[in-house]
Amino acid sequence: MRQAVLAATVDLLAAEGLAGATVAAVARAAGVHETSVYRRWKTRENLIHEALTSRLDATLPIPDTGDVREDLSRFFGALADLLSGPYGPALLRLSVERDDTLDDRRRPYWTERLSRAAVMVRRGVDRGELAAATDPDLVIEAVSGPLFARVLLSDTPVDMPVVHRLIALALDGARPRPEDPGTR
Amino acid sequence: MRQAVLAATVDLLAAEGLAGATVAAVARAAGVHETSVYRRWKTRENLIHEALTSRLDATLPIPDTGDVREDLSRFFGALADLLSGPYGPALLRLSVERDDTLDDRRRPYWTERLSRAAVMVRRGVDRGELAAATDPDLVIEAVSGPLFARVLLSDTPVDMPVVHRLIALALDGARPRPEDPGTR
Repeated sequence: MRQAVLAATVDLLAAEGLAGATVAAVARAAGVHETSVYRRWKTRENLIHEALTSRLDATLPIPDTGDVREDLSRFFGALADLLSGPYGPALLRLSVERDDTLDDRRRPYWTERLSRAAVMVRRGVDRGELAAATDPDLVIEAVSGPLFARVLLSDTPVDMPVVHRLIALALDGARPRPEDPGTR
Repeated sequence: MRQAVLAATVDLLAAEGLAGATVAAVARAAGVHETSVYRRWKTRENLIHEALTSRLDATLPIPDTGDVREDLSRFFGALADLLSGPYGPALLRLSVERDDTLDDRRRPYWTERLSRAAVMVRRGVDRGELAAATDPDLVIEAVSGPLFARVLLSDTPVDMPVVHRLIALALDGARPRPEDPGTR
């Protein structure tokens, strides 16, 4: 029952936004009793938060290939697929949308989930691929932030080429590197 | 009259959102006749677009100090001030907000204005401070994107420390640099 209800919640959120994702509508779509939904999740807010979180965790596994550039490419490639797919923009917009019927636990959930990705950068530091003083969360922000901004603000493409260019900039930097002139 | 109307439009947009920025309300706030507003701007959409654009251009001058790191620090410091001030979040949210009474010309206006900032990076390339293959727009996105995401998605601080760390990451990269180990 849990999976059916969470899936129905994400479908309704993506199709109709927050307003459409009422407990009644979710229960109807999942074919369960409204009371069973309330028994399990207590509040609509808990239901929406768990639905979004579980969807994002399932869609964005954290790779561990032993190479930080490869790990970041796979992770942010999956994020780009999500953001350019049918669900992504709607789910992202949900975190920006104001709704007095929900508190702010919903808003930082994208960034909360992404903070899990910092472990890929930490491993790169431990392997000596990245500088010891690297801020793992900042590297994740420097790649994810532009992808979010493209979806929310500019409608420019969110695809593998831009993912690779953002990762290269975050790892190599725009200043010349003697060992590989003209990086990017 | 133009400045008074544009200022009244920005005030209403920031205070009440798109819904509050009707031509009637703007005319009332600016103390002009509604017909004079229509005579000059033709449509509410033109008025809102010009109000946002002129405000952003006035708030974000493009510095030219001869040092790319300093130019970027001043520019993005001003952007951080705007985004953490009373107007910023509301004006940024406007570009995400859906409104069937306006077309999408309004959405990319932040990124359109920021693309003006790419000239600071181009000058850095011309001076040899940055690699010849540097993508100026990508560097601007790598710093502005995380700032936008912080305001829209995570409610984390948008201040000079994070601006400096994002610029350092975009210019130096997370990979170790022999000449200055432990950058960032």
